[in-house]
Amino acid sequence: MGTVIGIDIGGTFLKAGRCRNGEIEEFREIPTEAEKGPDAVVNNILRVISELALEDTVAVGIGAPGMVDTTNGIVRYPPNLPGWEEFPLGRIISEKIGLPVYVGNDANLYALGEWRWGAGQGARYLVVLTLGTGVGGGIIIDSKLLVGANFAASEVGHITISADGPYCKCGNRGCVEAFLGRDYLVTFARRQIQKWHGHTELSEDAEITPKLLYELALKNDDLALFVWREYGRMLGIAIVNYVHIIDPEIVVIGGGIANAWDFFIDSTLEEVRSRLMSFPSRKLKIKKGILGNEAGIYGAAYLAMSEGNV
Amino acid sequence: MGTVIGIDIGGTFLKAGRCRNGEIEEFREIPTEAEKGPDAVVNNILRVISELALEDTVAVGIGAPGMVDTTNGIVRYPPNLPGWEEFPLGRIISEKIGLPVYVGNDANLYALGEWRWGAGQGARYLVVLTLGTGVGGGIIIDSKLLVGANFAASEVGHITISADGPYCKCGNRGCVEAFLGRDYLVTFARRQIQKWHGHTELSEDAEITPKLLYELALKNDDLALFVWREYGRMLGIAIVNYVHIIDPEIVVIGGGIANAWDFFIDSTLEEVRSRLMSFPSRKLKIKKGILGNEAGIYGAAYLAMSEGNV
Repeated sequence: MGTVIGIDIGGTFLKAGRCRNGEIEEFREIPTEAEKGPDAVVNNILRVISELALEDTVAVGIGAPGMVDTTNGIVRYPPNLPGWEEFPLGRIISEKIGLPVYVGNDANLYALGEWRWGAGQGARYLVVLTLGTGVGGGIIIDSKLLVGANFAASEVGHITISADGPYCKCGNRGCVEAFLGRDYLVTFARRQIQKWHGHTELSEDAEITPKLLYELALKNDDLALFVWREYGRMLGIAIVNYVHIIDPEIVVIGGGIANAWDFFIDSTLEEVRSRLMSFPSRKLKIKKGILGNEAGIYGAAYLAMSEGNV
Repeated sequence: MGTVIGIDIGGTFLKAGRCRNGEIEEFREIPTEAEKGPDAVVNNILRVISELALEDTVAVGIGAPGMVDTTNGIVRYPPNLPGWEEFPLGRIISEKIGLPVYVGNDANLYALGEWRWGAGQGARYLVVLTLGTGVGGGIIIDSKLLVGANFAASEVGHITISADGPYCKCGNRGCVEAFLGRDYLVTFARRQIQKWHGHTELSEDAEITPKLLYELALKNDDLALFVWREYGRMLGIAIVNYVHIIDPEIVVIGGGIANAWDFFIDSTLEEVRSRLMSFPSRKLKIKKGILGNEAGIYGAAYLAMSEGNV
């Protein structure tokens, strides 16, 4: 069988693993050094490959942000990677290491990882959402990643659920990300402080983070519990949209904010039940991702395995 | 090559055509008689088949409303067809005529028709919307119809674009159909009459229809022009959602209300330009459907051709 190396290029950290039979047997995490430009990042990628590669390593898969031309391994205008523009990452790495290299969008590969070895196993149709600073994800249709005509499909964070809603960083209004991204969660919580005065530990001068809201919820703080319920409600509306279009067997929710699962999932499910057409007759499960921060490495490894026929 | 018969079961009329080389060479339209129950409809289907079939007819394709199990030819709880529940239409017709029969969802087959022989030709990824009493459509992914895990994908009329918007017939709120369906268009126009007093021919006691609004727009009626611009704006928001998920080369707009194209398309395109991520770098065309009422017959015929390997 041989081994493959999966790499996930984050804005801050570059994570990589050598995979054998669907298990990461060795792992590396180093700073991406994105601010030093593409050459520095390429050198860091080569470094982790040289540290991880064995005699039986046959292919490398890489997840990168932005629109990724998976056919030609070209990364296009990735956010958080200054100076990349249109960068032929696959060819450059492949020429240096003498192995086939396959490149995909990082959020799509996260979805691929959860599909192959995570919470989405067994689904022919799958929607994966990652909840964090932004909202990303990927879609599996008939057991294949949906990439679209311009490698720009599955922008699950940027569908409008409120036509005249708050502005999103993308320039559009009322996007899923505008309601479920970290910033909105924090802003929304801050706006509630006055209203919940006397029923919350949260004070005007607190530095609000999703983690703090999670910890307050653990302590039954009324404001925090309300904020997570509202978060869950908006998530439910978003999920119903994906389900009405894709009709998956499973929806997987990952990303750091998914850790607050116990506090938002009830109102998510309530919203799904009330909004979804033909709810009772569908086979639909909503699950928490299980691969965590390593989902992207797993997905990149699977890309290398499947494209490289390992 | 042989011929195939494509049939479109509407709530009111049953339309059918015998197709040879992608052309309808003979056509029938008779009342569906849905109110008489499934047996009457089956007899009407058999009648049009017997009238159209030739020696060289090798397969039949049928489009039906509701969730259609395309694998087994079962029609599930179709709206507008009382008494059908779970109806094995494919097997029943096939046993009677001794030919293979393939069944699909009518809106999906409309999309398939526009993809194969209509405005969506050449696209690997395509989204088709039909604007009429309701909003339906279909999606082509990698040159195949998206049917989903429960044959319930592509419910393009029932994605939420306004979380707390008007109620939709489906029970959900702020669906695309709640803004783009015939009823909302009529209600929205009626609400404008006071405001546009002196600038419109429309009076409180007029019977408003999409056709009337179209005719008034032709006469430069300010109210009608405004109503179509607003309609176009909501259509644009909906289109952006599908494009962010599917990333198609072409979006086709069909259905009766698409006849008002000239009056809504500018504001649709304006909304798409302002909301769509990576707009300039995408290959994306928004086109009016060209097969009209016959798109469903063409799609059913193509289903028979492709599944029957004609």
